[in-house]
Amino acid sequence: MNSDSLQYQFNRIRSNKAFEAFVIFIIITSALLIGAKTYKISDALMSVILWLDWFITAFFIVELSIRFIGEENKRRFFLNGWNVFDTIIVLVSVIPIDNSEMALLGRLVRVFRVLRMVSIIPELRMLLDSLLKALPQLGYVVALMFIIFYIYAAIGSMFFAQINETLWGDISIAMLTLFRIMTFEDWTDVMYETMVVYPLSWTFYLTFIFFTAFAFLNMVIGIVVRVLDEENERMKAEELGHEPCTLDKLRDEIQALKAEIRQLNSNSDYSTNKNSKPE
Amino acid sequence: MNSDSLQYQFNRIRSNKAFEAFVIFIIITSALLIGAKTYKISDALMSVILWLDWFITAFFIVELSIRFIGEENKRRFFLNGWNVFDTIIVLVSVIPIDNSEMALLGRLVRVFRVLRMVSIIPELRMLLDSLLKALPQLGYVVALMFIIFYIYAAIGSMFFAQINETLWGDISIAMLTLFRIMTFEDWTDVMYETMVVYPLSWTFYLTFIFFTAFAFLNMVIGIVVRVLDEENERMKAEELGHEPCTLDKLRDEIQALKAEIRQLNSNSDYSTNKNSKPE
Amino acid sequence: MNSDSLQYQFNRIRSNKAFEAFVIFIIITSALLIGAKTYKISDALMSVILWLDWFITAFFIVELSIRFIGEENKRRFFLNGWNVFDTIIVLVSVIPIDNSEMALLGRLVRVFRVLRMVSIIPELRMLLDSLLKALPQLGYVVALMFIIFYIYAAIGSMFFAQINETLWGDISIAMLTLFRIMTFEDWTDVMYETMVVYPLSWTFYLTFIFFTAFAFLNMVIGIVVRVLDEENERMKAEELGHEPCTLDKLRDEIQALKAEIRQLNSNSDYSTNKNSKPE
Amino acid sequence: MNSDSLQYQFNRIRSNKAFEAFVIFIIITSALLIGAKTYKISDALMSVILWLDWFITAFFIVELSIRFIGEENKRRFFLNGWNVFDTIIVLVSVIPIDNSEMALLGRLVRVFRVLRMVSIIPELRMLLDSLLKALPQLGYVVALMFIIFYIYAAIGSMFFAQINETLWGDISIAMLTLFRIMTFEDWTDVMYETMVVYPLSWTFYLTFIFFTAFAFLNMVIGIVVRVLDEENERMKAEELGHEPCTLDKLRDEIQALKAEIRQLNSNSDYSTNKNSKPE
Repeated sequence: MNSDSLQYQFNRIRSNKAFEAFVIFIIITSALLIGAKTYKISDALMSVILWLDWFITAFFIVELSIRFIGEENKRRFFLNGWNVFDTIIVLVSVIPIDNSEMALLGRLVRVFRVLRMVSIIPELRMLLDSLLKALPQLGYVVALMFIIFYIYAAIGSMFFAQINETLWGDISIAMLTLFRIMTFEDWTDVMYETMVVYPLSWTFYLTFIFFTAFAFLNMVIGIVVRVLDEENERMKAEELGHEPCTLDKLRDEIQALKAEIRQLNSNSDYSTNKNSKPE
Repeated sequence: MNSDSLQYQFNRIRSNKAFEAFVIFIIITSALLIGAKTYKISDALMSVILWLDWFITAFFIVELSIRFIGEENKRRFFLNGWNVFDTIIVLVSVIPIDNSEMALLGRLVRVFRVLRMVSIIPELRMLLDSLLKALPQLGYVVALMFIIFYIYAAIGSMFFAQINETLWGDISIAMLTLFRIMTFEDWTDVMYETMVVYPLSWTFYLTFIFFTAFAFLNMVIGIVVRVLDEENERMKAEELGHEPCTLDKLRDEIQALKAEIRQLNSNSDYSTNKNSKPE
Repeated sequence: MNSDSLQYQFNRIRSNKAFEAFVIFIIITSALLIGAKTYKISDALMSVILWLDWFITAFFIVELSIRFIGEENKRRFFLNGWNVFDTIIVLVSVIPIDNSEMALLGRLVRVFRVLRMVSIIPELRMLLDSLLKALPQLGYVVALMFIIFYIYAAIGSMFFAQINETLWGDISIAMLTLFRIMTFEDWTDVMYETMVVYPLSWTFYLTFIFFTAFAFLNMVIGIVVRVLDEENERMKAEELGHEPCTLDKLRDEIQALKAEIRQLNSNSDYSTNKNSKPE
Repeated sequence: MNSDSLQYQFNRIRSNKAFEAFVIFIIITSALLIGAKTYKISDALMSVILWLDWFITAFFIVELSIRFIGEENKRRFFLNGWNVFDTIIVLVSVIPIDNSEMALLGRLVRVFRVLRMVSIIPELRMLLDSLLKALPQLGYVVALMFIIFYIYAAIGSMFFAQINETLWGDISIAMLTLFRIMTFEDWTDVMYETMVVYPLSWTFYLTFIFFTAFAFLNMVIGIVVRVLDEENERMKAEELGHEPCTLDKLRDEIQALKAEIRQLNSNSDYSTNKNSKPE
């Protein structure tokens, strides 16, 4: 059938290394155009950039169509988050820009085209996936950290609001100030200011730094290290073509061995007894 | 009996998922009220907040009562640190506020209500427990660090007190300055100031930074990573329903195997001899 | 033959511990001369330094010649990157200095002589090699980080260029500013400035810090820790003179054992049957 | 004998828990006196402190004598670095203070008395020992880092000395400036200053930061983590009373088992053959 052969043809193009390299080249060009626009450039160059920009948009539509038609299972195509992302990026690019609001959105979308690099190169996709995998594990750490931030921000804005309105005015500003303190950014300036009124307020800052910067950062490190190790082991196991051997499995093997030896032992005893009986 | 059925009834409410979700919702509302109070709000909204505040206090008393009556073993209830914490938070909330001192305490207690989130959600409680578990292991590191801080602060205030009274005036101020240096917060400003008088004083700062920031921070990381790993292994073991297998246990298994084979060997030898004798 | 004996002789010199120590001494002298030149020194001392400098250049030519003639396989000599590095350093040193441009290059080359220390001492070479080994693994992390930097720099220069030209003027300056933010260097000054115009611009900074400083730094730590562990295990294996034992190998051993016991079991059964038959 | 009984008596005092606690109490008192002296105190209190100070010195002499007389092997006493340290601290304390130079030394020695805490409490001693154990492993990392610092300092003072004399004047000042850059302390101020003259000088700073702050800090973390793990395993092994089991040992055990089974197999074959022959 015509449609089938077209699908097959497009699937072949899609898997073609040269086509993939060309797509990456176009994405890089797109990224360079975005960069170029931030410089002060002549009008002539600007019009060239605009022409190139439309060519890239057109190319992305063609490329996405090829990938969509080349896909055997049309439904599965949109189950893949990256395909949805690519489609949105392409669709928003073709919306005619009327007012300045939309123009800004159009420019932003063009910036996010660079992220298509991640969707094309499998290694980058895997890296981001492993990072996202770590997020649920980090979820409760972030929740606990948010609670600590909230409590310190509430206390901070309760006591220090009248000292420095711009730093401790309300709870959201106080949380931003606390984030700054967590990154050690001029935190002593903030502290010395409040120590004039409350000489013991250094305990507020030191306990906060201990709670967040030290303990929690270490926890994050611990979790990320663990996730990376797991990912690493999983990959090794895949390379081996079987599940990695564990100590528990080894013990099971040894116990199976013992059972067989016991069996052997009883046989041997029986054989010995049989032999000795006639005597 | 009436009391028993009440206890059973309350125990059922306590374990109810919807009730738990409602408690969490109330705690979040309580946290939002605390945050709202830090903004400049109209008197009408303020009175609404005060009414909500009293409702939350009342709800917490009811909730705590349900949990207390629902508990089978009344003594064990107060052995749990989180229950004691919850009780104190609720009791202090109901104390009538007379003077401004007490008002401040009342406001502080309302802030700490947010911590009830940790006592309700088991994952957060586990996270905090594993952090507290790491503390005794960190105890001696903190002690050693305190000694280093004390020695450097004594030397610092001995030499630099006449250079900058606000930074090195006495040993406690000097320790705060050293903590600041450890966080790399404008530490060069402190150093350049003393280098004018003592050109070699950079050795004081550099050795201090090496001792504390590098060596000790790494130790802390090492210990926290280890504790997290242990916690992780313990949890895996619990999931498996038995203790995790170790290399030493495997060796014991293999040696038991060897003993049995030896037994078999001697039997077999005996059997061989028995058989060969008659010939 | 004459050439052979010369090669043998030079190979012996090359491997001589005293010769090696003398080369290290000369490199250190060379490094001290470079350091000495940065101080304001008298003309007499300067001429001594220049004489020493020429002596060191001459010595390096002799030393390189000895190593080259002493090498059995002349081709393999230039396959070693460190030998190529040493040759370039020596050759550029002897180029007659005509104009100031060349003089600067000559001075720079003399500075890089210090790196010869790494090429001479095996432990330092191994350390640098293990660092370079980690680079390909870090390649994709760096690529992903570059993409994040590029996107944030494009957005940053799009919105903030008119606020502060020197920080967000074009995409390359914006990337430098973002690097500064990643190191937490006065990042709040940059943020507070843009928050005056865009009050929500703190989200830009906070998400950027979360993406880069926390997640990625931890990934880098994870990868480096892993590479170091692998290197460590490889070295242990080399010390043992055999490959390190793995759990999978142990399982294979146990399964081989089981096969033999089964063999034994069938023999024993046979023997038992044989014995029982006559009865 | 009299001497023997004295030695035995003193050895008993030394091992006495109460005596140890009293020594720790005296050291803490000594530390508090040092701290107290940094405050502005009345003359009356000062004379009390001086009296206490002499009492502590006297007590330390007595305590050291007890420990020395109590020691069975007098030679081994001074082989222990901590004993030598204690002796020096005590001896310098009793030197009569004549001029201000000596007075300063006397005060410094009193500060270092706090370190006696480490020599008394075994856990702190173990912690410091494990830190010192990591040093040789870090030796080459420090050497490589010093080479990088030296090269960058030489290049920095070559190019930037005329821009800012106080930061890049000579190679030693340049190294201090580079250390500051490594700690991210106002490093952009240093960079922006040189970028006015050399617009590409950001490459100098960025490559330096990549080389030192990222790569090497991670190496240090890696090594310290490893050393801590080793220490931890060693301690576990000591608790078990035997060397920890390794995978290689397990394999040896399994291979020994295999040899025995083979032996058994050949016996069994023999027995089978013996039995089958008569038929």
